Amino acid sequence: MQAVILAAGLGTRISSLTHNQIPKGLLKVAGREILYRTLTYLQKNGVNEFIVVVNPQFKKRYEDFFKKYSFSVKFVLNSSPERGNGYSLFLAKELVKDKFVLVMSDHLYEEAFVKEAIGKEGLIVDAQGKYIDSEEATKVKINQDRVVEIGKSLRDYQAFDTGFFVLTPEVFKVAEELVSSKDVVELSEIVKKAGLKVSFVNGYFWMDVDTPEDLAKARKFLVKTAVKGAGDGLISRLINRRISTWVSSYLVEKVSPNQATFFTFILGILSALVALINVPLGGVLYQVSSILDGIDGEIARASLRTSRWGGYLDSVLDRYVDFAFLLALMWKTAPPLSFFPVVCMAMFGSVMVSYSTERYKAAFGEDIYVKVPAMKYLLGKRDERVFLIMLFCLFNRIFELFLILAVLTNLRVILTLIFAWRAQRFLT
Amino acid sequence: MQAVILAAGLGTRISSLTHNQIPKGLLKVAGREILYRTLTYLQKNGVNEFIVVVNPQFKKRYEDFFKKYSFSVKFVLNSSPERGNGYSLFLAKELVKDKFVLVMSDHLYEEAFVKEAIGKEGLIVDAQGKYIDSEEATKVKINQDRVVEIGKSLRDYQAFDTGFFVLTPEVFKVAEELVSSKDVVELSEIVKKAGLKVSFVNGYFWMDVDTPEDLAKARKFLVKTAVKGAGDGLISRLINRRISTWVSSYLVEKVSPNQATFFTFILGILSALVALINVPLGGVLYQVSSILDGIDGEIARASLRTSRWGGYLDSVLDRYVDFAFLLALMWKTAPPLSFFPVVCMAMFGSVMVSYSTERYKAAFGEDIYVKVPAMKYLLGKRDERVFLIMLFCLFNRIFELFLILAVLTNLRVILTLIFAWRAQRFLT
Repeated sequence: MQAVILAAGLGTRISSLTHNQIPKGLLKVAGREILYRTLTYLQKNGVNEFIVVVNPQFKKRYEDFFKKYSFSVKFVLNSSPERGNGYSLFLAKELVKDKFVLVMSDHLYEEAFVKEAIGKEGLIVDAQGKYIDSEEATKVKINQDRVVEIGKSLRDYQAFDTGFFVLTPEVFKVAEELVSSKDVVELSEIVKKAGLKVSFVNGYFWMDVDTPEDLAKARKFLVKTAVKGAGDGLISRLINRRISTWVSSYLVEKVSPNQATFFTFILGILSALVALINVPLGGVLYQVSSILDGIDGEIARASLRTSRWGGYLDSVLDRYVDFAFLLALMWKTAPPLSFFPVVCMAMFGSVMVSYSTERYKAAFGEDIYVKVPAMKYLLGKRDERVFLIMLFCLFNRIFELFLILAVLTNLRVILTLIFAWRAQRFLT
Repeated sequence: MQAVILAAGLGTRISSLTHNQIPKGLLKVAGREILYRTLTYLQKNGVNEFIVVVNPQFKKRYEDFFKKYSFSVKFVLNSSPERGNGYSLFLAKELVKDKFVLVMSDHLYEEAFVKEAIGKEGLIVDAQGKYIDSEEATKVKINQDRVVEIGKSLRDYQAFDTGFFVLTPEVFKVAEELVSSKDVVELSEIVKKAGLKVSFVNGYFWMDVDTPEDLAKARKFLVKTAVKGAGDGLISRLINRRISTWVSSYLVEKVSPNQATFFTFILGILSALVALINVPLGGVLYQVSSILDGIDGEIARASLRTSRWGGYLDSVLDRYVDFAFLLALMWKTAPPLSFFPVVCMAMFGSVMVSYSTERYKAAFGEDIYVKVPAMKYLLGKRDERVFLIMLFCLFNRIFELFLILAVLTNLRVILTLIFAWRAQRFLT
């Protein structure tokens, strides 16, 4: 499938955002160009060729962009962008072979929107427009599944224009008629004249980034929805994620995921060293490192930079931080030999909680939290353990802490085995 | 694709193997019926319907067998098995639609043979016949890719008849001619008269189980080749597997994989308890349990009973056995507090060796030993650790043992991270 991207706009309205005259589609939001997101999602959902209509003034910038990410692209030059975006579409005519996607270069969409929209027909509209300014948005009046009116100032409308279309080459006939009879042709005129079919895709995140406020809003949304979810414990959901996503939305354009992983690791080891001197302070620092531990993943997902290696490294380092902290507590409290088995069981159980879920994924190829939703309610995940450890550190009850950890973690492993067994029993 | 299975033979020659008059195809080798293996491999390689020609006397038994495993089957009754197996083939004529596989019910094949043979044409022959008695085997004389002679007593031949064919319905014309002109028609007569094309598939395991000796030989082969391989350490390859496969070939028909897992776990925990009383003896018992730890997987693979759950359970239990043994050594030697971090690092490092490889599989969906063959040469896998522990136990050098384990295991984890990083660097 092909996609036509309209990117010939002059972008005058957004000069405050683009100091160096960057075309709006190449503006970065949460660490990635707006267009990069759209292209990535389109490609994942079956588009294998992009036809981009650009203003000659920005051609070099777009070429560099496409070369950097190696998307398959054909450029169409529009030397008269003042003739409107309907004219831009018309220029793509010769390169389009069959049914195609038409999308604006400067609209942000979440992946689920693209996935659903690409299977529909005509102009994709949204009855809700959750994330947009309805004053500024383009509205659509619909009658019997067809566009009858389209524009910003409509009073009587059913939905918002998302700037996303699934079209057939027939649209070029209408475009040609209009282009040959007048100078300036907007896309909305073609849409109206063709009486395009309308398809609803409601409630997803999509927006046209126009102001610095839009940019901040978009960044925040992208980071918030970059939380992985499956496997997050109670403390993560109630406390850690609220703070970490807030921090991530500040850092997403400044820090790489691997830098965040490294920083959190150092902070975790540091918290263990501090615990050797002052147990409560060490505990608090440990909890802080646990909160910040979410940042690497959030930044990676929000900026479409996830890597298996990153997740792998983060997991292994987390185990070492947990071990170091318990080792420091052991050293600080110097328990008698008779208590040592309990200390060892707490250390061993802590790593086994992760081992038993990761080994499940290695064996079954899927997440145990997805396969067995009841797993979510089992206490003992890392965020919960760290929080518990902090609490006991604050009150300096280290013996009791080791006892509870020794029981809680190993019990959780046994329950994980039982859940896993019950889940597979119905398969064979 | 369809497969015709000739199973109407009277089986008189094998009465010593089948006391209760079981047809030979339903005879169990390494815990599974001969026919079950063939059907499983055929199904995995594209066959979705089986046409089985049976003797009415055994129809019930075959029906029970097919119901038990829910293969898709159509039966053809041959009330005159004395008319030969060529006649049996002829009876399947009406049910065969297109190109089909023809195979004998009483031949054992390894999976790789089936996979390769199914893509070839005509009579599949083997120039080597590694596992068969060449006196007893059916030989084939070939001229320009065609059968010219076939029989047991041939002196001048190029290959052995494997009993596996990939045919087109045209073969039924030749069968019909022969059947209408004479009473007894052997398959070999049809093959010769049709001048079937010959395809070579050389060197794999396949055999016709005729005697109790054949049965033992087949069982041994199936267990030997059921070793998983990837991830086996030095001690496994040199010592453990040689003993465990020998034991497995005795147990494969008597013990289930999960029973073996459970027994080995108990033996491992027992070895830790014994170490509390006598360290060298505990060490030896621990090494014995490590050897026997291979049995569950070998039995499971040899009897086509592998389950993800079984592998998962075995892994988690192994971690607990390792932990219990080191905990016993710690208790027995009662080290001073200052040495405790070393003990903890040894315990933690031991589980992290497994964690780092299993977490890799969870993240990348493939085995790190397959992705990074150099990993094989990294010391510190379980079989190697257990052997090392036994050696140090024999000489009662527990402090040195903990020191070495603490360094060796954690160093291995760091190297695993480095290997994993280098492996993915070339992908992005």
